[in-house]
Amino acid sequence: MSKPTPLSGFPEFLPDQRFVETEVLATLARTFELHGFAGIETRAVEPLDQLLRKGETSKEVYVLRRLHEEGGGDAGIGLHFDLTVPFARYVLEHAGRLEFPFRRYQIQRAWRGERPQEGRFREFTQADIDIVGRDVLPFHHDVEVTRVMLDALRRLEFLPGLRLQVNNRKLIQGFYAGIGVEGDGVDEVMRIVDKLDKLEPGKVRAMLVEEAGVTDDQADQCLALATIHSSDDEADDGFVARVRALGVDHPLLDEGLDELAALVRGCADLADDRVRIEADLSIARGLDYYTGTVFETRLDGFESLGSICSGGRYDSLASDGRTTYPGVGISLGVSRLLVPLVQRGLVGASRVVPSAVLVALADEESRSASDAIATALRSRDIPCEVAAAPQKFGKQIRYAERRGIPFVWFAGADGGHEVKDIRSGEQVAADPAAWTPPTEDLRPQVTTNEREQ
Amino acid sequence: MSKPTPLSGFPEFLPDQRFVETEVLATLARTFELHGFAGIETRAVEPLDQLLRKGETSKEVYVLRRLHEEGGGDAGIGLHFDLTVPFARYVLEHAGRLEFPFRRYQIQRAWRGERPQEGRFREFTQADIDIVGRDVLPFHHDVEVTRVMLDALRRLEFLPGLRLQVNNRKLIQGFYAGIGVEGDGVDEVMRIVDKLDKLEPGKVRAMLVEEAGVTDDQADQCLALATIHSSDDEADDGFVARVRALGVDHPLLDEGLDELAALVRGCADLADDRVRIEADLSIARGLDYYTGTVFETRLDGFESLGSICSGGRYDSLASDGRTTYPGVGISLGVSRLLVPLVQRGLVGASRVVPSAVLVALADEESRSASDAIATALRSRDIPCEVAAAPQKFGKQIRYAERRGIPFVWFAGADGGHEVKDIRSGEQVAADPAAWTPPTEDLRPQVTTNEREQ
Repeated sequence: MSKPTPLSGFPEFLPDQRFVETEVLATLARTFELHGFAGIETRAVEPLDQLLRKGETSKEVYVLRRLHEEGGGDAGIGLHFDLTVPFARYVLEHAGRLEFPFRRYQIQRAWRGERPQEGRFREFTQADIDIVGRDVLPFHHDVEVTRVMLDALRRLEFLPGLRLQVNNRKLIQGFYAGIGVEGDGVDEVMRIVDKLDKLEPGKVRAMLVEEAGVTDDQADQCLALATIHSSDDEADDGFVARVRALGVDHPLLDEGLDELAALVRGCADLADDRVRIEADLSIARGLDYYTGTVFETRLDGFESLGSICSGGRYDSLASDGRTTYPGVGISLGVSRLLVPLVQRGLVGASRVVPSAVLVALADEESRSASDAIATALRSRDIPCEVAAAPQKFGKQIRYAERRGIPFVWFAGADGGHEVKDIRSGEQVAADPAAWTPPTEDLRPQVTTNEREQ
Repeated sequence: MSKPTPLSGFPEFLPDQRFVETEVLATLARTFELHGFAGIETRAVEPLDQLLRKGETSKEVYVLRRLHEEGGGDAGIGLHFDLTVPFARYVLEHAGRLEFPFRRYQIQRAWRGERPQEGRFREFTQADIDIVGRDVLPFHHDVEVTRVMLDALRRLEFLPGLRLQVNNRKLIQGFYAGIGVEGDGVDEVMRIVDKLDKLEPGKVRAMLVEEAGVTDDQADQCLALATIHSSDDEADDGFVARVRALGVDHPLLDEGLDELAALVRGCADLADDRVRIEADLSIARGLDYYTGTVFETRLDGFESLGSICSGGRYDSLASDGRTTYPGVGISLGVSRLLVPLVQRGLVGASRVVPSAVLVALADEESRSASDAIATALRSRDIPCEVAAAPQKFGKQIRYAERRGIPFVWFAGADGGHEVKDIRSGEQVAADPAAWTPPTEDLRPQVTTNEREQ
């Protein structure tokens, strides 16, 4: 076998890079659990009719076929392209054995056969949180789920700054209804307004008139709404006054505006310089799926990645005809976030192995003695390994250095023990039953490097 | 959408069952890291020519095809059916950036399109450990990898008893050579001897003569060897003495017998009544892949599951033509082990949510006060949730009971706080900034039930 080449769109980590990912996933899981969210995993496959139910052919589903199967594979199963479709199915399938409101987190891979590009992979890991009710789910859960994800993002201290942007489907729909845009026109107008981040406002305005068939006044109002976002120099809900100043009146607009203001207000105490939250009335993506709150998230300096954390409220996440399960959730694109940071070397690990200690080996005959030292250290939760070969001690120390192992343990012939910190060179007498490394050396640490300008 | 039905062969856990799995995987990962093994994950897919390289069509590979792909899908990629093939590819692809000997663990799902049956799934989780060298890998790593897995199995305290059975390819091959069976006959004899657990010895003996073409004496010797098993390598009736007593002489037999004795001796201190290790000279499965040590593991009372933990030594795990990477490893079938135990209710969790505390809610107006209590508890790593609705306190307590949450927190109108242990009914004054539940209540506990006789 010659040297294999990577498969485009299927990123893989080296051990130290994977350590960073493991730490991130552990931090996420721990945070979600602190908020009472139970972890689940679903199978990787769903029936194709479920995967394609919403006409999601754009998701580029991977269809499975058994190698020896006689035809018919296409009628079968495919890999899930997100964690929402399988979760909705899980809720319906197991509803009788779940307690509602059901808070769950799910950290798992998903697959899409899209053309790979930066931040877009064919295989990727997502971390989703959702709260699902039976029949009803009060609005305060929208605030809750946002606070949980903000708490998680704050704990990922190595991340660059980021902005969680919030909007509300009711607000948009009510506003449009208030200016006389209704029915199919709503989706068409949203589709065009969504191009504001790529096209000149004048061009978008022309498209609204020509393609969506709205009046000049309606187009102006749509653009005016979409340019509103709360900014640092005004109160958190300053955007409310600016929406009101547009003079549009509709009960659904009022409801959406109240919800959006409550959400921003309810999360304000979690914002800081690095992790911000703001109302952004241009956020439109996904509004056609969602029925209220909508989220997107931009990473400072990595805007080209698109949204790294998205979600919102589905008033009908799942339904079996008799019972409807409303839900609200957010999905963090772990691979989209981490792969660029790790591959550019902006985030890494302090060593490539878990071992905090290398137990040196004087000769092959003393291997069992070195093993006994390692066993004593492990019994006190100190990760370690015994040298693979009885090389000269200088070579064994370089072996530790290459791996980033901070300590080398030497057992003297007289039964005495010494441990050397190979960074400082300091060597001290030590007892395998009592010596403990500094806490920060017990496990590898996540390290960050300044981004090159 | 009507209620979905499960897909046969794709097991899924409820939240409390998934908690058990999470605990098992965390224990495994922690143990492997204590021994210096670094965690990696590989992509879920491999090129089909790699998956089918060893003629592994029996593994029932799932082939992937993009829904909109124009033909050609079959020439592409498939889901991995184990973690060894992808790991061998990973070693070759990344060899220049790895340090050898490379110790890695990998806990991941794999897929096989086999007919589902007890302990056999189409999607399943495995936990693999391997040590890989460059060009050479001394035998002491065979002992090391065995000790690591034994340490991990000992830490899974809820498991029934189990037997790690060891054999050695060199021993078998050397013995056969010593009695005159060589070349293609070796594999044929092993294939037939492997049927000893299903067929009468007399029947196996007849097959050896008729199908493998060995003499009556050779057949008797093969059967005599295969019936030897023992955890004792030194006593007069230990397996070394019993093999020697068969009077066969061959250098490869000596080498294999020495290795097997060293392995059993080197792990003896880790054996106890529950987790045993023994030489079993009937173990043949996989001998055709392996070049030395071979492992299988039986779970007491679940023998029908087959081996739940298998592996061995590959002298050529991977090779790029210039460099060969020998390896030794063991793979634990996490799903094969856990799904039967969990589905029969033999193992479970003490509650269905991570929350140790439910913060009660007097009325909707005091939600932010209840949120503040929850935030104070979480800041000291106490998982909790706030009641979803301001129901009567009796209802809120029953809500906690249904989830298994042990404590309910009440904030008095006068600013006083009380916390109730709903198991004992005891209610005491408490400070959200200081109160801590007993350690065993902080997280759900894995619970075991006696197996029904």
